Amino acid sequence: MANKKNGLLLVMLLIGIVARSQNPQGVVAATNIRNAKYPLILPDHRVVFSIRAPDARRVEIDLGKKYDLVKDAAGNWSATTDSIGEGFHYYTLFIDGVAVADPASESFYGMGRMASGIEIPFKGGDYYALKDVPHGEISIKHYYSAVTGSWRNLYIYTPPGYGQSSNQKYPVLYILHGGGEDERGWAMQGKADLILDNLIAEKKAKPMLVVMPDANMPVAGFGEQGLKAFEQEMESTIMPFVDKNYNTENTAKSRALAGLSMGGINTLYTGLYHTNLFSYLGVFSSGWIVPAQNELANAQYQFLASNGKKVNDDLRVLFVSDGDKDDIAYRNCKAMLAKFDLLKINYTYYEYPGGHTWPVWRNDLLHFAPLLFR
Amino acid sequence: MANKKNGLLLVMLLIGIVARSQNPQGVVAATNIRNAKYPLILPDHRVVFSIRAPDARRVEIDLGKKYDLVKDAAGNWSATTDSIGEGFHYYTLFIDGVAVADPASESFYGMGRMASGIEIPFKGGDYYALKDVPHGEISIKHYYSAVTGSWRNLYIYTPPGYGQSSNQKYPVLYILHGGGEDERGWAMQGKADLILDNLIAEKKAKPMLVVMPDANMPVAGFGEQGLKAFEQEMESTIMPFVDKNYNTENTAKSRALAGLSMGGINTLYTGLYHTNLFSYLGVFSSGWIVPAQNELANAQYQFLASNGKKVNDDLRVLFVSDGDKDDIAYRNCKAMLAKFDLLKINYTYYEYPGGHTWPVWRNDLLHFAPLLFR
Repeated sequence: MANKKNGLLLVMLLIGIVARSQNPQGVVAATNIRNAKYPLILPDHRVVFSIRAPDARRVEIDLGKKYDLVKDAAGNWSATTDSIGEGFHYYTLFIDGVAVADPASESFYGMGRMASGIEIPFKGGDYYALKDVPHGEISIKHYYSAVTGSWRNLYIYTPPGYGQSSNQKYPVLYILHGGGEDERGWAMQGKADLILDNLIAEKKAKPMLVVMPDANMPVAGFGEQGLKAFEQEMESTIMPFVDKNYNTENTAKSRALAGLSMGGINTLYTGLYHTNLFSYLGVFSSGWIVPAQNELANAQYQFLASNGKKVNDDLRVLFVSDGDKDDIAYRNCKAMLAKFDLLKINYTYYEYPGGHTWPVWRNDLLHFAPLLFR
Repeated sequence: MANKKNGLLLVMLLIGIVARSQNPQGVVAATNIRNAKYPLILPDHRVVFSIRAPDARRVEIDLGKKYDLVKDAAGNWSATTDSIGEGFHYYTLFIDGVAVADPASESFYGMGRMASGIEIPFKGGDYYALKDVPHGEISIKHYYSAVTGSWRNLYIYTPPGYGQSSNQKYPVLYILHGGGEDERGWAMQGKADLILDNLIAEKKAKPMLVVMPDANMPVAGFGEQGLKAFEQEMESTIMPFVDKNYNTENTAKSRALAGLSMGGINTLYTGLYHTNLFSYLGVFSSGWIVPAQNELANAQYQFLASNGKKVNDDLRVLFVSDGDKDDIAYRNCKAMLAKFDLLKINYTYYEYPGGHTWPVWRNDLLHFAPLLFR
């Protein structure tokens, strides 16, 4: 192709790129679908929503707080929210009372359905930015579970350079989503791959595999049947599958288990009773739910009363974290930690403001991963 | 754990599984989100939709044909569709005129947004069933494009056993989505991994990599600028990235390019002019759009008039297919093939009923992949 043509093309491309990103008022969210002009994020992180719905009678956006949109003469509904905090937030569009995903947004499995999410840029977000460092990859694996009698998916992160030498073995972090989410949560909402890529590039974390299973079982999640079913799934299916198909170190010392919210409870159930399998545990925005899980909690405290020394000796890190007082899990977590103190169970506590949300959990991974496999 | 407890758990699990799949009227769609009871597929492939929307005035489902749902006293709207054809179909829920994704369904990037899709089971669907054969995997790769000046994603399928020997090199099929779709199309809607897993298991296709790029460029897709931009993206970025990071054979004889609809036009533009790079081309439900693309079409026919022998010699397979007369690309495709006949360009034509839809394109891949790299 002639150089002149190349030059023209470059100009056309640049025009296209500038047109997409330039807006005197703000920037379109990175989570918007291609070419969607709204939601638009203002410099002070208020967000403008605009939805065409001439025949609707009420349009709302729920971002934790609900906003009523206002209709103009052309049938466009709009609203500007309060300033929204850093990072990823689920949100819901209501059209005449029906909760749906915003057609202008990418969708993320959360809240038990494909939900909208908005990514609010912020200065401290460099740790999950996609930048020029060596990148690992996330792969989608199908496996057959004898526990559920069905095919299931897991997502797995392999670090940069994985597979280049068949002799190199890797430690494994198993990390679990929350209620209403699935194996995609840490990959998509969590940006676990980018967090690890960046930590590994800065030598702040060891190269590791990160396995993101589907912790939803046919029986519901918070009762003992659900917890037990997932424990079985991990031990009899997921861990053997990973150790068979990947170059893993395959020892307790090189195995971590963590989870957020419901996944934190799975971690307490599958992890604290099996310190022979996991030397590192991470419990993010979680803790036994009282009084609903009193029996489960008391059984665990009783176990720890008898086995505290072994648990302390086995575990190199028990990392417990919360999104401060706005976190719905805060009180349960604190109550559990008071029990741990009484029982002399060693743990590390970390708090980051933001409530029960993904910005907190991304930050938890940022602080947990560097502690692993040292 | 005691055996008695194990037994009880098994019973609980079985009850859960049976409860989910058993319905005297029909089966819930595999594309439904977890626990959604509708859409429900009846034995004759009519589909029952049911949406709770007490405050809406009109609720419709668009599956190519639009269906008005009817409201009952409790505020639930429902309708039963005509019998729907095999496989995957996009659909839209309208709430008081606003087109949204059905919250009961998984979402798929298509129609330029996250859209609902429904998977209709059918007897011939075994070729994309998830079954007990060796499975490859799909990985999500980030790469930096100097063409767009941005980070982009591609999905890549690696076949079973890939990476076990660093000496084994693989041929590569590059396969492109249609307009309004992206790199996820062939992975999610297309089930390209399962089609290849099953073909490879039956030794009907050679083990190959399947690269699924994002063919959307900042300039729109159907004009020459968009086509040229994607050609540049392929040649200067995607192909070097794949050859650098994977064990590829890296010759024209071991490289194929295919695409559906808009991706078919990209294939005509990037492929037919570069038979030094690709020995196999697949053009699914496509063809130059006349009269809009007259200039592009005539330029290509002129090129073929001068270079027909070279193109015929270089290409081992030029596979052109259509979804029969219901396919919106049918006339354009036939007009192009008449030109190919006139210019004595060799090709293989394949037709499968179903119009301009994913069941046709899955079937195209089923018939194209076995022809490759022989």
